[in-house]
Parts: sequence; C-alpha cells; structure tokens
Amino acid sequence: MHKQLTIGLFGFGVVGEGLYRVLQQTPSLNASIKKVCIKDASKKRNAPAELFTTDKDVLLNDPEINVIVEVINESEPAYQIVTTALNGGKDVVSASKKMIAEHLTALLELQEKTGRSLLYEAAACASIPVIRNLEEYYDNDLLHSIKAIVNGSTNFILTKMFDENLDFKQALILAQQLGFAESDPKLDVEGYDAVNKWTFLLTHAYGIIEAPEKILFNGIQHIHGGDASVARARNQQIRLVAQAQKLQNGKVAAFVLPQFIQQDDHLAFVKNEYNGVVIESGFADKQFFYGKGAGSFPTASAVLSDIAALRYQYKYEYKKLYHHKPHQLTNELYLKVYVSFTDWKFIPRDEFEWIEEWHAQEERKYLVGVIAFSKLQEQNWWRENETSLILVPEPIIEETATRDLRKRSLELAGIV
Amino acid sequence: MHKQLTIGLFGFGVVGEGLYRVLQQTPSLNASIKKVCIKDASKKRNAPAELFTTDKDVLLNDPEINVIVEVINESEPAYQIVTTALNGGKDVVSASKKMIAEHLTALLELQEKTGRSLLYEAAACASIPVIRNLEEYYDNDLLHSIKAIVNGSTNFILTKMFDENLDFKQALILAQQLGFAESDPKLDVEGYDAVNKWTFLLTHAYGIIEAPEKILFNGIQHIHGGDASVARARNQQIRLVAQAQKLQNGKVAAFVLPQFIQQDDHLAFVKNEYNGVVIESGFADKQFFYGKGAGSFPTASAVLSDIAALRYQYKYEYKKLYHHKPHQLTNELYLKVYVSFTDWKFIPRDEFEWIEEWHAQEERKYLVGVIAFSKLQEQNWWRENETSLILVPEPIIEETATRDLRKRSLELAGIV
Repeated sequence: MHKQLTIGLFGFGVVGEGLYRVLQQTPSLNASIKKVCIKDASKKRNAPAELFTTDKDVLLNDPEINVIVEVINESEPAYQIVTTALNGGKDVVSASKKMIAEHLTALLELQEKTGRSLLYEAAACASIPVIRNLEEYYDNDLLHSIKAIVNGSTNFILTKMFDENLDFKQALILAQQLGFAESDPKLDVEGYDAVNKWTFLLTHAYGIIEAPEKILFNGIQHIHGGDASVARARNQQIRLVAQAQKLQNGKVAAFVLPQFIQQDDHLAFVKNEYNGVVIESGFADKQFFYGKGAGSFPTASAVLSDIAALRYQYKYEYKKLYHHKPHQLTNELYLKVYVSFTDWKFIPRDEFEWIEEWHAQEERKYLVGVIAFSKLQEQNWWRENETSLILVPEPIIEETATRDLRKRSLELAGIV
Repeated sequence: MHKQLTIGLFGFGVVGEGLYRVLQQTPSLNASIKKVCIKDASKKRNAPAELFTTDKDVLLNDPEINVIVEVINESEPAYQIVTTALNGGKDVVSASKKMIAEHLTALLELQEKTGRSLLYEAAACASIPVIRNLEEYYDNDLLHSIKAIVNGSTNFILTKMFDENLDFKQALILAQQLGFAESDPKLDVEGYDAVNKWTFLLTHAYGIIEAPEKILFNGIQHIHGGDASVARARNQQIRLVAQAQKLQNGKVAAFVLPQFIQQDDHLAFVKNEYNGVVIESGFADKQFFYGKGAGSFPTASAVLSDIAALRYQYKYEYKKLYHHKPHQLTNELYLKVYVSFTDWKFIPRDEFEWIEEWHAQEERKYLVGVIAFSKLQEQNWWRENETSLILVPEPIIEETATRDLRKRSLELAGIV
C-alpha cells in the first residue's frame, strides 16, 4: 500500500537523534534508518556503532536507501548532499532554510528534472505546517496576504523587552542562556534567518522566486528600549514580521521588518520563542497558525511528517509557480514608518513623502513619516548609526503621494 | 502525473455553488464537475441547465465520474449517497458531520472493504485543516490533549454575552440575524453539532470510536447572564469546549462542556463565529489553529483541499486506530464544576465529592464542587431546570477523592 522507506540520515545532533528515536517507536511508519552520516566519528552516540559512517557516499550510493534526510547545519555541504541525492533518484527531506533560500532556483529545476520529491516543512516555522497548508489550501487568486513571525529568537527578545522591561542586550543574553539564540546571534537578530525562510514561503504562497538579499529586510538589532516605551504608550507591541500582500495592481509587496502591532492582533498573541502565521484569503478568510518554530522536537516532528508524506509519494507542486501565472514583486508602494535615532543628521528628511510626527526633544528622537519603498531598498541610512525603523502597519499606500503634502508637513514641522 | 478527477456533485446550495465557481477558475486542479444532483429542479441556478439532474443514479452509475462530492444537509440521504459511491468504486468528499458521526463504524468498514478514499475535512472546523493535521502530524504516543472550539454559533453567542453584555436570548437572535445560527438553533446551542464533530475528531486524534450519544456533552442553552458576571469577576470567559486528554493511566477523558477559560488562554482568543483548536503533544509542544469554522466559502475551501488531495490518491490512514493500539475512553475521573441554579432543591448535593464554594444569597445561586465524571454521565439534573454546569478547568482529578473531604466541606458549609 505504502512505499517502504529506507532512510539515509545526515546529522545526528538533537534533531537527528530525536528523529531516530521516534522512528524506532513507530514501526507503523514503514520507515527505517539504515545509515547515519556524521562528521565526528569519535563522539559518543546513543545508538549502535554500525549505524554510523563518516563517508557520505555510503549513503548516497546505496541503492537500497530511497530517502535522504538532511538535518546538518552547514548550508553548502547540505546543498551537495541534496543535489546528489535527487540526481541519484532519491527523495529528500531537508531542514536547511539557508540552503533552500540560496539555491531555490537550482533546487526547483532539479526537482523538475529528476521527478523526485524534496520536502522541507521543518525549514520554516518547524512545528507549524505552513508550507503544506500553503500548497494545499490556498489558490493563487485568493491569497490576499500572509503575515508571519518566523524567527523565535527575535520574538523571544522582543517579548522580554515588553513583558519584563529588559533592554535589548539583557534580553539577548537571556535568550542565549535559555538556548533560544545562538552564541553568534547575527543571523537571527539581524533578520537573515527570517528573510531566508520568507524567500521560499513566498514561492509557496505566490509563486515568487527571489534571492533573499533582494527582499527588503531588517532585524531588531537597533530596537531601543525607547521604542518599546513608545509602543507601550500606544498600547502596541513590536514584532519582527515577515509580510507579503497582494496589492490592487495584482503585484505583491513583500518584506521582513519590525512592526508595531495592536495588542489584539493575532501576532501579538505570539510570545517568546513561538512562531505564528496569519493568512488572509478570499475563501477561508483569516486563518492563524501558532506553534513552536524551532527546537529539536518541533523540528523532528516536522521532518517526520515529511517522511510520512513521502510514503504516498507526496511532492510540492509549486502550483502558484507552475500552474498559474506567478506573481511579481513590486516596489511601487509607500510605507508609513516610525524611525528613531540619536541625531537628526543621520536622517535624510527630504527622502520622506511626508512627515506626520516628530519628537525631537526626547533623548531618543523619533519621527513618523511616509516613505517610498524603493528608497528603503536603495538606501542604507535606516539600518545604520543606531537608527531603528519600525513599520506602522496602516494600509499600504499604493498611489503616489503628492510631494506637496510632504513639503507642507515639513514646513509645518519647522524642519525646512 | 495526477489522477484526472471527474466529479459528481450532490447539492448546489451556497457551498456547492461556491465550489463549482472555484473549480471553473482553477483548471490546474485537473478536476471538473460533470453533473450536479439537486432536489428541486424548478429553482433557478447560475449554471447551464444540462449540468443538473434530480436523479442521483445518473451520477452514481456514471463510470466516468470517479469522485462524488456531497454537500447536502440531510444526514440519511447523504449516507445513502456516500455508501453507494464507495461501493461503486468512487472516491468521496463529504461535509456531513452528523452523518459521519452517526455512521462512523460502517464508514470505516466500507473504506477498508472498497479501498476507496472518504475525505471530510469540511465536516469539522471548515477552514482549519484539523483532520489532516491530526492524521499527519501527531503520533499516537505523543498527543497529550486536544481542546477545541468546534461550533461557531455557540461561540458567537458566548462572545456577545461577554463583549456586549447581551443575555442569551438577545445574543441568539443576533446570531440568527447574521446567519450564524439556524432558525432552529437546537443542534448548535444544545451541543449536538459539537459532539458530532468531536466523535470523529476523537477517531483521528486517538483512534477512539464512540457513538456521539455516548460522549458526555452539553450545550450553552442554560448559560445565564449571572454566569457571565461570575466569569468576568474572575477575569475569565466562558466557551463551549470540546476536550480530550490522555490521563496518567493511558486512557482518554473526552467531553464537550462549557468551560471557564482564562483571558490569556488560546481559546479566549477565539471570538465570534471563529473556531480554534489547541493541540498539546510531546514533540510539537503546543499548537494552535484558528479560522472560520463554518460558512459557504470556508467550507468550500476545505472541500476543495480534499479534492486536491484525491488527485494523488490521498486517504485517511486512521493510524491511531489501525497501526497503534487504539486508546480507550475512561470515566474514572473527577471534574471540578461550577453549577448555577434557581433553587437548591434541583441540586443533589450529596452526589458531589466535595463542595468548595456556595453562593446561596444571590438571585442566581451557584456552587463550585468536585463530582465524579460517571455521575454526570448517569444523571440528568445538571442539564435540567435551568441549571447550568460549567467546567472549572483545573487539572483533571484522576484519583478517587476521599468522601470525608466532601462530608467535611458540606458540614462547614452548613449544608448538612
């Protein structure tokens, strides 16, 4: 009835070992691990020695192994493993978000060419089945928007800044102590991890293929205690949100930015290391998925569900890419943003369409203004010099705003 | 690559017509409706006349039709259609929760016998893919508990009682005006609809097969404005919650009852006509799914996803039933409950293990006490005489409580 799966596993860290244990306990899955490839043969493992090898070809060349599961940390070795396995006629389950984001085009071609299946539910939001649901549940024309918290480390830090009044550094240290942030937190904190995940979620949601570095993103590294105070005074919180939204012109605006969110927003419900996804569509209306986005067990559970799906030869269809006219990204829009800073000299006021608020007296100065998305893409001032930019999530402005409005507001503000 | 689906559709109400429109717009699905069976041929329809028939055999005997989609309202005709279709070698998609709940055993046997697929994601929580996720994501040993709001009508009424201070009748009328409750609201309001859905969700979650009338349930028909006030004073809300929980003895406690819930509970987030499901498991930890649980479009979107799944011959595996030792239901537990009433004479005080609070002075009297689950199963006083029973969701008590405690508390209360 089901395909018998014989698995070659790469990686025996917390996820790999967790997976090994679960598969042992669930004979019904019809899946067994034949061999595990590890880097360091000398490390002591809680499994029979004959299970292990350090030679990847032992797994990749074994004709009996029909599934490669890859849960290693390094992106390039993972890419080599995945491509060799697909070319060798094996199905693949991967959890390597960075690898998938960076090699998306090549991996799509390879799936087409080989006809094999590459599943990677664990690579985004771990325990939340977001990829499978985007594949199965939303038709191209109907997906209005998707907003998500896809990085647990930054969400943990932001939650602690709000709920316990910690400053950024204290919250980061706490996250590291509890294992929610790496010792080198750059990938998480500066938004790289989130935009990597967003890259392929955009493919499943809208058929968009874009390199991660081409997607507008920022992290939370410059979020200041003062920003949290402003948010709190407005009964809002700050979250790092990945967002994609279909505009009236049919194109899609997509970015990963810190945002103010209302206390009753679905994403405000997502605290600490959890992830959450809010999908708005014509048919299903508003849906919200919430769960752990990282960690050994949540990740193993997602890998396991991919393995289970391979038994009935499940493949991602990338419907929005292949069966519909894929959507295009656009930069023809304007965002309302809050910008806080230490000195006016770092802020190119003239770049704003208009400025609605300015608070120049406080130690931490800030303004609220409207700026063209394309300017944020072209310029870097808003990431530098301790400047923090936070999206004010009003409806995205699609029409060109009149420059007069800007000029008048600057005049009123006494800035020009 | 995919199976070409030729569909015979039963029912052309809001769901059926919605489905027809979507399928027209998504040729990529490789699925087309060949014929639609309706009851009333004279009604004007927004589709070519030749599409329709009133003779069900035209669909059921057509060898070209390989999928029957059934979105009619009556349970017994639906059962006839579904069984005939499966026996005729066709796959089936159904949205009839009552039919599925009442005929679960026969439908399981028929799926086994015929090898055909019967999918019914739309029958519970509509737009929330709860069945598919229970099938794919949770292994038998790991599912600690599942708590869900599965009925939008009652949730709408309870929300309005809290947020707008309406009494039960006002809230019901509002629900009816807005189309969230039937003109005969009995099925929803008295909990029948919720327990029907819970019946087969228990099968997918725990491999339990039980007739709906054997599962302890109640509705919200006797929830009183006074109960809402008590909840509000404790910073809680009341929701109609379907719950199943694995106890330490390995058995499962399951019921559908109104519950007090904390403001920060996941289910408190579920307001108005929405549904929500909270799943706790060993691996994925806590997951929360939220979305519209009824309505033409959310239902059509769930039906559509089932149709999409049939293209790659997806079937429910009922893993927890067939591949594991199915769980058993137990009644060996005690619940802490709040009971409000108009007169002490309706309350069999002696049946309680102990009573912790009693408020006999108010117009609406109430007590909080611990009672054996089996007593609630055997007796009916708590559903009658305007009495309302609401679960206080403390950890379920598995050990036999000492009767002494009960006696002492009654003495202290001056009740005996």
